[in-house]
Amino acid sequence: MKRRAVLAGVGAMALSGCAAERNCDDAASGQETFEWKMVTTWPPNFPGMGTGVIRMAEHIEKASAGRLKIRVYAANELVPAMQVFDTVSRGTVEMGHGAAYYWKGVSEAAQFFTAIPFGMNVLEMNGWLYAGGGLELYRELYENYNLMPFPAGNTGVQMGGWFNREINSIDDLNGLVMRIPGFGGAVLERAGGTAYALAGGEIFTSLQTGVIDATEWVGPYNDMAMGLHEAARYYYYPGWQEPGPALECIINKEAWAQLPVDLQTIVELACATLNDQMTAEFSARNAEQLAVLEEDQSVEIRTFPDDVLVKLREITDELLAELVAKDPQAAKIYASFDAYRKKAQRWSAVSEQAFLRTRDL
Amino acid sequence: MKRRAVLAGVGAMALSGCAAERNCDDAASGQETFEWKMVTTWPPNFPGMGTGVIRMAEHIEKASAGRLKIRVYAANELVPAMQVFDTVSRGTVEMGHGAAYYWKGVSEAAQFFTAIPFGMNVLEMNGWLYAGGGLELYRELYENYNLMPFPAGNTGVQMGGWFNREINSIDDLNGLVMRIPGFGGAVLERAGGTAYALAGGEIFTSLQTGVIDATEWVGPYNDMAMGLHEAARYYYYPGWQEPGPALECIINKEAWAQLPVDLQTIVELACATLNDQMTAEFSARNAEQLAVLEEDQSVEIRTFPDDVLVKLREITDELLAELVAKDPQAAKIYASFDAYRKKAQRWSAVSEQAFLRTRDL
Repeated sequence: MKRRAVLAGVGAMALSGCAAERNCDDAASGQETFEWKMVTTWPPNFPGMGTGVIRMAEHIEKASAGRLKIRVYAANELVPAMQVFDTVSRGTVEMGHGAAYYWKGVSEAAQFFTAIPFGMNVLEMNGWLYAGGGLELYRELYENYNLMPFPAGNTGVQMGGWFNREINSIDDLNGLVMRIPGFGGAVLERAGGTAYALAGGEIFTSLQTGVIDATEWVGPYNDMAMGLHEAARYYYYPGWQEPGPALECIINKEAWAQLPVDLQTIVELACATLNDQMTAEFSARNAEQLAVLEEDQSVEIRTFPDDVLVKLREITDELLAELVAKDPQAAKIYASFDAYRKKAQRWSAVSEQAFLRTRDL
Repeated sequence: MKRRAVLAGVGAMALSGCAAERNCDDAASGQETFEWKMVTTWPPNFPGMGTGVIRMAEHIEKASAGRLKIRVYAANELVPAMQVFDTVSRGTVEMGHGAAYYWKGVSEAAQFFTAIPFGMNVLEMNGWLYAGGGLELYRELYENYNLMPFPAGNTGVQMGGWFNREINSIDDLNGLVMRIPGFGGAVLERAGGTAYALAGGEIFTSLQTGVIDATEWVGPYNDMAMGLHEAARYYYYPGWQEPGPALECIINKEAWAQLPVDLQTIVELACATLNDQMTAEFSARNAEQLAVLEEDQSVEIRTFPDDVLVKLREITDELLAELVAKDPQAAKIYASFDAYRKKAQRWSAVSEQAFLRTRDL
């Protein structure tokens, strides 16, 4: 499979009829066709993410009148989810979709481009990425891996997770066994819990059989599709661990350079469209499914106590201080992220937060 | 000017070489070129809106390799702002950009597609439009006017406005002379104030000379560009009158039908891209400018008292009840809007609102 992917990539490059520069004026309105593959980190037809990526590929094919065809692969169809970054970086496949924080093994700095605990919500992340210097830093980092990243989707605030133990104080995190990957997992571990990074397919059974006491996943839309509401007593909010995770489309830089400017622009517009419409889909479906869950009443919806959240944030700050002390790239990116967040936090207080509070009066 | 616009439109149609059907397969990847005009409701280079629309036109030209060129006109360059809808509806010009609530003189129902007081924020509006049935109702309404609408931008929550009178109770609205157009203005009038609908160019001087006691406009980014912070003592929030105004791109249906499917798709993607990126730009620039204003300290930033907001919402509900009683189209659209809002309000409480509160702990 991999060998065929490489050959298809080379074929597409040869067809473009111009060298690896970005501007090939002759080709700009030409009839060259490209057949690309896109590997993703999502299970087949995964609601919101997987379905959104398929729609993006359809948009690109339609907007290019078939000149850029993209075949989308779910996780494990061509490569496992955790090999998406490397596969696109090496040019085996032209394009990928996933989340930057999956690549923290490659670069810890990458996770700021998805989400960190107590970080930024979707409006703030988009503001930072598109208009606050974030995307420039993102591209600078990924340049090292031969990749061009685009913001391409966001779930909005996630939920805190499904629990079979009550969380009444910080002591209740001691010994808690929870499926919670990444930075959030590291925070839980320092609070005395045990963090597992189970893949989607293992979560339901692990929660139902008591292998884990709790799990976070996404929000009502995805979580209930997986049946998690049938395996837990409590559904906690807010999702302190992922307040507005930004998803990414990554493109191999040589493949990108082969595209004429019109097709590059179409790809860029299709990514931004997914960024816009995936968030809308999550807003609508999460709202619907939450209503179904509250109607059903089999699960109790609860907030984490304030002192638990404050403690988790303190631990987050400790871990961030350790990270920026050892990793200059992470330090540079976090400086931009954090400066933006401070201003954004005040603007959110005056705008979104004040409005939402007013509507509840 | 109008005559030339009509002729250019006809020319473009003739060039497409196929009748007014949507699918012209021969033309789909062809070299037909279209030269369109887009009239807008925005002053020249108006920050965020005007600049965003110019970027959208550039995206379309680049993605189509010059096959669809759109010349953008600011308000009054070709037609006054308030004639955009009618001009595109009649086909004098192919495309327009503005906000649906400007056309409430044509249809009161249109305003739900932009904003109503105490309505929905940007995430909720996008959820309703794209994934909650809103866009279907929008297209059904605009079908009557020979128009195809697309969501194309949103400022996010606006500010309550600049005041030279303190608002300490509902009595302080009595006799208040404020620049506040549309539904918000009607609410103020019923609360005993006087609402003016001054155009942008008249606001600063009117506030400075005391012709008006107060004005709302957009948010720190646009407002301070206009110098309003130099003419007022207080800056009030939240913007109860426009919690997440959605802007629109409208296209004449005959012009739309002339485009091959690839160019139609490009237009659709460019509108969604503007919808994504304009909100990001407002998030970033409003946050920056708010920080500048707070640093400067010449204006006091205040919240409206709760009882004032509650009263304004009660009046809003009265006016909505009167509107739906007399206008069946408005009743149908408001039923969808309001059902969506109820679910979205609960989801926002559990997601965005809970997260923002947590970060402030």
